[in-house]
Amino acid sequence: MIVLLGKTGYIASRIAQLGGSKVLGVSLSDTDYFKASVLSDLLKDVKAEFVVNAAGYTGKPNVDACELAKYECLQGNAVLPGIIREVCEDLKVPWGHISSGCIYSGIRPDGNGWSEEDNPNFSFRCPPCSFYGGTKALGEEVLEGAENCFVWRLRIPFNHEQSPRNYLQKILNYKNLLEAENSVSHLDEFAQKCLECITKDVEPGIYNMTNSGSITTRQVTEWMQEQGLSDKQFSFFQSEDEFMNLAAKTPRSNCVLDTSKAEKAGIAMRPVEEAMIDSMQKMRLELSV
Amino acid sequence: MIVLLGKTGYIASRIAQLGGSKVLGVSLSDTDYFKASVLSDLLKDVKAEFVVNAAGYTGKPNVDACELAKYECLQGNAVLPGIIREVCEDLKVPWGHISSGCIYSGIRPDGNGWSEEDNPNFSFRCPPCSFYGGTKALGEEVLEGAENCFVWRLRIPFNHEQSPRNYLQKILNYKNLLEAENSVSHLDEFAQKCLECITKDVEPGIYNMTNSGSITTRQVTEWMQEQGLSDKQFSFFQSEDEFMNLAAKTPRSNCVLDTSKAEKAGIAMRPVEEAMIDSMQKMRLELSV
Repeated sequence: MIVLLGKTGYIASRIAQLGGSKVLGVSLSDTDYFKASVLSDLLKDVKAEFVVNAAGYTGKPNVDACELAKYECLQGNAVLPGIIREVCEDLKVPWGHISSGCIYSGIRPDGNGWSEEDNPNFSFRCPPCSFYGGTKALGEEVLEGAENCFVWRLRIPFNHEQSPRNYLQKILNYKNLLEAENSVSHLDEFAQKCLECITKDVEPGIYNMTNSGSITTRQVTEWMQEQGLSDKQFSFFQSEDEFMNLAAKTPRSNCVLDTSKAEKAGIAMRPVEEAMIDSMQKMRLELSV
Repeated sequence: MIVLLGKTGYIASRIAQLGGSKVLGVSLSDTDYFKASVLSDLLKDVKAEFVVNAAGYTGKPNVDACELAKYECLQGNAVLPGIIREVCEDLKVPWGHISSGCIYSGIRPDGNGWSEEDNPNFSFRCPPCSFYGGTKALGEEVLEGAENCFVWRLRIPFNHEQSPRNYLQKILNYKNLLEAENSVSHLDEFAQKCLECITKDVEPGIYNMTNSGSITTRQVTEWMQEQGLSDKQFSFFQSEDEFMNLAAKTPRSNCVLDTSKAEKAGIAMRPVEEAMIDSMQKMRLELSV
């Protein structure tokens, strides 16, 4: 049995769907997994073989909300991973934590994406950062040296579905866009590869779980026009300063991650262009039905 | 009724003792105050007029232990203040949080001590710091803008008693000492002044609650010799580097705080020399009995 903490979240729902009957979704209202003894009893009761922590605190509608919910953000993103680690190590149950690539900014000075070996550079220890990014980086720090633990770094999830959390939907909805280069994660593929870590013989550790390569916001809007998803004239902020002044309370992480570790481990995700075009085509089909 | 969270701690015990029957001490085994609903019910049940949060996570025997208990440290020092804030603001109960001066390093560039207006410079956002200092600074960040909330910054508590937490006892016990300049807090006076904030008409806010002035470790050892507390030849590390290499896992905060805000508010503590000599004389009396 795979125990999935935070079953109702955007990412968790997809993992639950893909995992089917092997997955037992648990929400905080079912089980107070912030209490180590309660979580431990649950894992013993259901004979958990693996635990997936998808119970992070993100902030709605976006990370700005985390600036106003600091303790909840710390509790969900930095304390909870520590509690789960303690319980899982005690019971010797392997597990995976859904982390975020939003603990980096930009690209590496050598021009490559940030690898799993690089220290976060968009974190409390390396300001500026968002409160969200700070807590996610602390969460990884809390997991340093964890036994039998996967840390899956997701970034900017997207797929073909109409959801306010879907990056492609956001691009279509936002009045103004910020031009930036980013690694992004196809949600369904991300969920699939996380589950493969459980069934295949993958070495535990940190993995950048994004589609290979990177996109720029302008490139995405051009693909959208080419795929007939939108014929609108997309409007861009003139600069990151203008974006910060007009539309944001806290800085955003825009960054490129290196995915070669996941590729070597056999859990690579498709090249980003392929995944995006595929999503856009499905999105268009759904819109035209 | 004053509700005191974390009743068994070193600082809390003193507050409980001084507050007498007005104080209801609560420990985590009595009441799970990490749950907002549980804490709220308690405060309503006992008609709390004030809450003192003395339930921080310090690490035993010293802050190095916090590096190995990261989630507990975050939970106790950064998340808990947020939970208490939420509950106290909801019930309109004034409260005080015991913070730490260990979120600063050194003295201000202008040669004065750090004031309550200065941003922490020994914190995750301003590295290097200890994990302990980082979490205490985050705790203050979580309390930014809190209503009817005192933040009392304690530093290096001392008095005349034999306790492994008493700074003077530590000086007597340690094999080697680190020479450094510091603000320090007479424990009993600190507790007394916190209680006065409740009974007197003191404006809520952050207060550096240390004895005025500062000490150096060498000065303290000289006073000890003068007061006949010890005739041993105190031994010092040659440098902070040697100290870090031989005796510590994480950097220590050594800093001087400005106490003029507390003085203006009528909750000043004695000059540090007076408080220290007094403690040493009492200590000597107790040793000679």
